[in-house]
Amino acid sequence: MRVRPIGVIRTPHEKLEGMPVQPSGAEGVRGTIEVLPEFVEGLRDLDGFSHIILVYHLHRAGPERLTVTPFMDTEERGVFATRAPCRPNGIGISTVRLVGVRGGTLEIENVDMLDGTPLLDIKPYVPEFEGDREIRIGWLERARGRSRDKRSDGRFR
Amino acid sequence: MRVRPIGVIRTPHEKLEGMPVQPSGAEGVRGTIEVLPEFVEGLRDLDGFSHIILVYHLHRAGPERLTVTPFMDTEERGVFATRAPCRPNGIGISTVRLVGVRGGTLEIENVDMLDGTPLLDIKPYVPEFEGDREIRIGWLERARGRSRDKRSDGRFR
Repeated sequence: MRVRPIGVIRTPHEKLEGMPVQPSGAEGVRGTIEVLPEFVEGLRDLDGFSHIILVYHLHRAGPERLTVTPFMDTEERGVFATRAPCRPNGIGISTVRLVGVRGGTLEIENVDMLDGTPLLDIKPYVPEFEGDREIRIGWLERARGRSRDKRSDGRFR
Repeated sequence: MRVRPIGVIRTPHEKLEGMPVQPSGAEGVRGTIEVLPEFVEGLRDLDGFSHIILVYHLHRAGPERLTVTPFMDTEERGVFATRAPCRPNGIGISTVRLVGVRGGTLEIENVDMLDGTPLLDIKPYVPEFEGDREIRIGWLERARGRSRDKRSDGRFR
């Protein structure tokens, strides 16, 4: 399957080192999305949503690995039990706040991706769609509350 | 960018017509994931999570469109303001409950995808990662509470 960018994400994060590792660590950080002209019609009605899910290409991730030591831990974990970027198929997802839409430009907040990230899709965030919620978060239980302060160190280049 | 399956999703939904349109409409519906042998090592530690995010190829969606009349509405909407499958880059995401892991087989619940759907990625669901939440859901506000009962009718073939 081939995918191609529908636009590009502009953020203040120009280097892998020191980036927030999740949107929770990027609260208030603004960015913009420039949607390619041929896709702008698909943005109609998006402005009613406060949050959108971005699907993007983790274009600067290093070669894929099946186990990683994530930012939130000191132990090696299976890559599918982490959000590490060096995964088979480098697809990232983040829920960000949608601040405004002007033509093909979206102003967004809580951006945790690199500047220049190729955007693959935009979906509305709808809590109801996510179904039931009695949540366990595995190895991350011990790290609870710390994603806000964690910063990237470029280990997945 | 090229992506390739890391496994396949098995569900009771063999036809587009009559499917749930979101995980909220598929509560209790069981499915399985068969992860390809070369990726099984990446599943380590996943069993600690109650919910996982599946990223998959909407392989039976029709040709892409920029506006659609979604299942939840009677008006034409921009495709990026909907979860309709006939979108540029046919990537779907669903959060499902993880019931069990045996080797490369995952037992899951609340499945809203077609049987045979190619799986591209698995990510742990961690509420904290999703950041702040004062939510507006645009045109879907009027449809609130109805995704549970909506069923697909094959309009996006």
